[in-house]
Amino acid sequence: MNEDRKGGFTLPGEAGYEDLTLKMAEKWGADVIRDSDGTKLSPRIVEAGYRIYSTICIIREHNAFALAHPDAQQQTFLSSDPVLAVGDTVKISPLAGYFDEQFQINDSPDAMPYWQVWDRTENVLVPREQWDYADGIVSVRACAPYHRYTVSFLAWRIWEEINMYNHTTNHWESEHLRQLDPRHPLAWEYLQNWLRNWCEANPDTDVVRLTSLFYNFVWIFGSDPRRRTRFVDWASYDFTVSPAALKAFEQEYGYALTAEDFIRQGKLQATHRPPTAPKKDYMDFIQRFVAEKAKTLVDIIHAYGKEAYVFYDDSWVGMEPYGKYFSSIGFDGLIKCVFSGFECRLCAGVNVPTHELRFHPYLFPVGLGGLPTFAEGGHPEQDAIAYWLHVRRALARQCVDRIGLGGYLHLTIGQDAFNDAIEDMAVTFRRLKALHAEGAPAELPVTVAVLHSWGSLRSWTLSGHFHETDRNILIHINEALSGLPVKVRFIRFEDVKQGALKDVDVLISAGREGDAWSGGDAWKDPELTAEITRFVYEGGALIGAGEPSAAAGGDTRFALAHILGVDQDRGEYACHQPWTFETEAPPFPVAEGALARTDGIRITGPDTRVLCAKEDAPVLTLHPFGRGKAVYMGGFTYSPEAARMLLDMILYLTGARGRDAGLTDQPMTECAWFPGQNTLVTMNCADAPVDTVVSLPCGDISVHLEAHQTVFKTV
Amino acid sequence: MNEDRKGGFTLPGEAGYEDLTLKMAEKWGADVIRDSDGTKLSPRIVEAGYRIYSTICIIREHNAFALAHPDAQQQTFLSSDPVLAVGDTVKISPLAGYFDEQFQINDSPDAMPYWQVWDRTENVLVPREQWDYADGIVSVRACAPYHRYTVSFLAWRIWEEINMYNHTTNHWESEHLRQLDPRHPLAWEYLQNWLRNWCEANPDTDVVRLTSLFYNFVWIFGSDPRRRTRFVDWASYDFTVSPAALKAFEQEYGYALTAEDFIRQGKLQATHRPPTAPKKDYMDFIQRFVAEKAKTLVDIIHAYGKEAYVFYDDSWVGMEPYGKYFSSIGFDGLIKCVFSGFECRLCAGVNVPTHELRFHPYLFPVGLGGLPTFAEGGHPEQDAIAYWLHVRRALARQCVDRIGLGGYLHLTIGQDAFNDAIEDMAVTFRRLKALHAEGAPAELPVTVAVLHSWGSLRSWTLSGHFHETDRNILIHINEALSGLPVKVRFIRFEDVKQGALKDVDVLISAGREGDAWSGGDAWKDPELTAEITRFVYEGGALIGAGEPSAAAGGDTRFALAHILGVDQDRGEYACHQPWTFETEAPPFPVAEGALARTDGIRITGPDTRVLCAKEDAPVLTLHPFGRGKAVYMGGFTYSPEAARMLLDMILYLTGARGRDAGLTDQPMTECAWFPGQNTLVTMNCADAPVDTVVSLPCGDISVHLEAHQTVFKTV
Repeated sequence: MNEDRKGGFTLPGEAGYEDLTLKMAEKWGADVIRDSDGTKLSPRIVEAGYRIYSTICIIREHNAFALAHPDAQQQTFLSSDPVLAVGDTVKISPLAGYFDEQFQINDSPDAMPYWQVWDRTENVLVPREQWDYADGIVSVRACAPYHRYTVSFLAWRIWEEINMYNHTTNHWESEHLRQLDPRHPLAWEYLQNWLRNWCEANPDTDVVRLTSLFYNFVWIFGSDPRRRTRFVDWASYDFTVSPAALKAFEQEYGYALTAEDFIRQGKLQATHRPPTAPKKDYMDFIQRFVAEKAKTLVDIIHAYGKEAYVFYDDSWVGMEPYGKYFSSIGFDGLIKCVFSGFECRLCAGVNVPTHELRFHPYLFPVGLGGLPTFAEGGHPEQDAIAYWLHVRRALARQCVDRIGLGGYLHLTIGQDAFNDAIEDMAVTFRRLKALHAEGAPAELPVTVAVLHSWGSLRSWTLSGHFHETDRNILIHINEALSGLPVKVRFIRFEDVKQGALKDVDVLISAGREGDAWSGGDAWKDPELTAEITRFVYEGGALIGAGEPSAAAGGDTRFALAHILGVDQDRGEYACHQPWTFETEAPPFPVAEGALARTDGIRITGPDTRVLCAKEDAPVLTLHPFGRGKAVYMGGFTYSPEAARMLLDMILYLTGARGRDAGLTDQPMTECAWFPGQNTLVTMNCADAPVDTVVSLPCGDISVHLEAHQTVFKTV
Repeated sequence: MNEDRKGGFTLPGEAGYEDLTLKMAEKWGADVIRDSDGTKLSPRIVEAGYRIYSTICIIREHNAFALAHPDAQQQTFLSSDPVLAVGDTVKISPLAGYFDEQFQINDSPDAMPYWQVWDRTENVLVPREQWDYADGIVSVRACAPYHRYTVSFLAWRIWEEINMYNHTTNHWESEHLRQLDPRHPLAWEYLQNWLRNWCEANPDTDVVRLTSLFYNFVWIFGSDPRRRTRFVDWASYDFTVSPAALKAFEQEYGYALTAEDFIRQGKLQATHRPPTAPKKDYMDFIQRFVAEKAKTLVDIIHAYGKEAYVFYDDSWVGMEPYGKYFSSIGFDGLIKCVFSGFECRLCAGVNVPTHELRFHPYLFPVGLGGLPTFAEGGHPEQDAIAYWLHVRRALARQCVDRIGLGGYLHLTIGQDAFNDAIEDMAVTFRRLKALHAEGAPAELPVTVAVLHSWGSLRSWTLSGHFHETDRNILIHINEALSGLPVKVRFIRFEDVKQGALKDVDVLISAGREGDAWSGGDAWKDPELTAEITRFVYEGGALIGAGEPSAAAGGDTRFALAHILGVDQDRGEYACHQPWTFETEAPPFPVAEGALARTDGIRITGPDTRVLCAKEDAPVLTLHPFGRGKAVYMGGFTYSPEAARMLLDMILYLTGARGRDAGLTDQPMTECAWFPGQNTLVTMNCADAPVDTVVSLPCGDISVHLEAHQTVFKTV
């Protein structure tokens, strides 16, 4: 029992609240106390016998150095908004429309060669001799009348974006923090020394928590409050750029990147779009740079006898934990903040000694979405439980080593419901962790492969948290998968061609035409479609959702239409009458609320069985194909019932027996069966008590669950 | 008053119902009696003092000749459904899935060279030496495993499609009629002789009504009743094809058409898609052939002292009345059946001596949509009035010479409400016609140009009747325009580049991405967008609806986004935050019910005024651009209120004064002001009485209207 009460928990301490810190450490069973962005620990806390995490954001909080060496700051490419040429000249103010507290034009001699002026109407580059830059204005001559022109340019980023976010959202009023580019030789020397000094000055720190490394995800602010954020992408690489990086790239790869490789007509290189070949090269280039520099820092930390954990959420770009170079860095731990099950699996699956989750909500007045949490009107315990219901089922499948919180501990004062809820979660987490330590839970003999442009590099996640990407069908599917008793793998289109379907049972493709998840032009490759055709024809299962395999140019809109038994009409089927159909009883339970329409879906023939239709359009179909089968879903929205439908669908498609991994008879409940310990873990997602019967290999077991309860039962 | 009671009306007579025929001729004021497809006239009718129209379908009802000369029958290209290659050979039964009462494989020596086998997975033609055809089966060797193969082939059409329709829908049981191809020399000789004989045998006929000429619109039936119609397109040219035509084309144009020019990956060349360059050549080629042959027939008819009218609805392909060669044929009249205002304008605007409308419903038990009209459960008078409300407003703008009905006259027995309604319409028509004869109604000094791929060739119509194309926004706009007091013109993208915007005030673009109406790849031409940019910048008005100017590849999805002030996100704007907006009061009355969402629409900046939004998406916006303005509508569904909104929008955009053409103050009413005759025609579309005040140049006038009433008032 004592084991359930203490350990594996990281508490945010707060100087000035020493009694509270030690009281909450006791209540939540903390073994670690940390500081947070905005809080400090006092000697009394540091000396209380806990391990100590100290947070550093290595590239930030060096304003004096940054001001002395402004060319050591980070940069990005930006594109001006288009300007119409009414006569034959046009004048463009490059930064118009951008937030001038974030950006400053870089017109230095090494930056100017990378500037470009584009005729966006004709989509052609304007020759350099046709434009000049002076006094903050680009003047373009010999314009084509009524064409639109843009300038692509380099800009210094003079406000670190997370600091900018906290100022904007949490009303911070401290000095705007700048950030250094480790590629700048002086900055890099300075940062290493700074870290050595820091380690020496902080002998009590056991773990240096890096938040995170060098380059933040892309977050571009606008001047107009009606569109304060112009662009935000948790996984794109624009903020790593600099003339020095571009030159080094050119030297290594033998070809030069241009502004347009980043600007892409002003659309930028969002992670939700399939990457171009140069972008893939550039990412690899940056990943190697980041890993090399990070290793140097970790080595310094290790030299001082400390451990180095990395927080995978802010300035993480280039160190994807599923990337090729991550393990070479030598981190001792990975910390991931989680709202959802997929984030939990993302963390748990990384090759690193310690996996730690940071639970939401943070102890902040306001949450990431801008709504109150600990501020008046907030319900932090409700938020915490809602996230926990997502996280718990993932932990039941694959556990992590540690959990914890962040923020201002004093905000817990008077929040008894929240404090009790966290205590309860900590206990449940420890029991799950102990079970996993003795052996894995039973799993179905089923391997599910999720197919998209990024493959394993973006295992489980798309681009950021669930709520940032919840318009993408795939994140809902990933979330459902995170708690199912199946093996899950993330593969690229190239992987399929290299034999990745060999031991796969169910292949999933879910996205919208042209996005990185559906795949876009990848589907113009007949080798890919033939291989998937073979896979299903020989007995595999395919689940497609949204606009899977959609690409213009083929004889069908979905390259896999012949397998799926549905296709999409985006106008090409004008005058082609659709097949009529009747909806038939589904061979597995269907969660209708989880399904949605995709416009233009029509069945390809009478052997497509329509299991559910909305507004006369099929939203769930089943199609036999050779010895295999395919399911199509117009949409898929995560819910406990939706996850259960996905499981039932997989059982139907593969012929696997749910009982082998444990299966409840109530869709709001789930279970994990640990055969080595004869222990059944049953979880209730419902807000009310539920009685369920769980089928196990050894027979059926009845379990009563209170609202949200986790029941551990030795069988 | 007598003038209102008689003339300009064509009555379908029916042998066996002579008294009824003469009674209804009296009631409806007929001056002409016609036969119909399926009815005959008796001597008593023919000799009753009326002009006589006789219907002939020149290529049909020659079964004996067709059976004796099966190679004189008409043909088409078809594509088999794709067949999967599991091993390295594949066997394809070309006609599988097609209706075998309609088609027969043409494997004659002159047809086989046009057959093609395609690997549709790879989108490549299979070399001729890799396949054979024998015993009705195409065998393909050396297939790529898991690729899909199709065969494109020529097929005889052995059942004339309108006859097939009547058998299928109206349960006809007579012999299936075949059709001859006038390109076949023997058939052509035969048809000319047949017509001469016919003229000699029918001395009482005043007008030969041709239904229509040679080639029917494309109507391809399937074998499975769950998709009886596979493809139907009122305006495509596939049914004109034959080896002889293809050879003649090659000789004249210096390049050969292939099956794929027609099959287009199985999607065919639907009129709703932008035409390819070879299709445009081919259409011109067919148009010249049809005009030349038609002129020969008309000359024969004239030689017998008869007139030749053509019915523009069935086998009309190649004789578009707005085509280059139509007037060379020498028709004396054009007959168009109408459900809608745009069809009325289409007929009225043609350069031909007599314009005649065939009103709906036809005197058939069942209507075109398959619902009862004169059969039990039908309400023919309600149908007639509903169509009339559409047609009347178009007649008020531009009148025709004649109206009439078709079908089985005996079905009017006991249908007093219908018979009275038609009588009333005939009287109103004659009064409108008389007004027009004295001078045109007042019009606003506004020219509206509707822009699409077909331009004037498809003036007013898209592809068939309203109900066949009502998913297309443009047909709703055309219907609204058909009764508005503005000049309307239909122009192609090429026309714009050749100066067609010179005297245009309002340019309209309405369609879905990639269709013939939006324009597809036409928008990749910077010359086009620059010219429209100039037009609006210098003070013109642009109305865009749906996905106007949409094309992938540009920096914006809508090539005219900078003018419209909206753009569409089809995924390219992932991570780009939209501008927030508030809906503001519109500067003209808005019919909200007429507007609809288009997915992914976002405003381009804060100067776009959102006048109406649905589910947080703008559905009506206004954007100033230079000295001009643009309106965007997400959707537009015709209704009297919608038409009025379009008029109010045009008045706002152009600054024209509604009073100058007459303007009612109630949206369910409309008016036409005939200044030369000081006559105001006010029309009520409402099912209830309405009082309206009409603004005229000379002042305001109050009018009381009963439900559906037309009031003629001398001012």
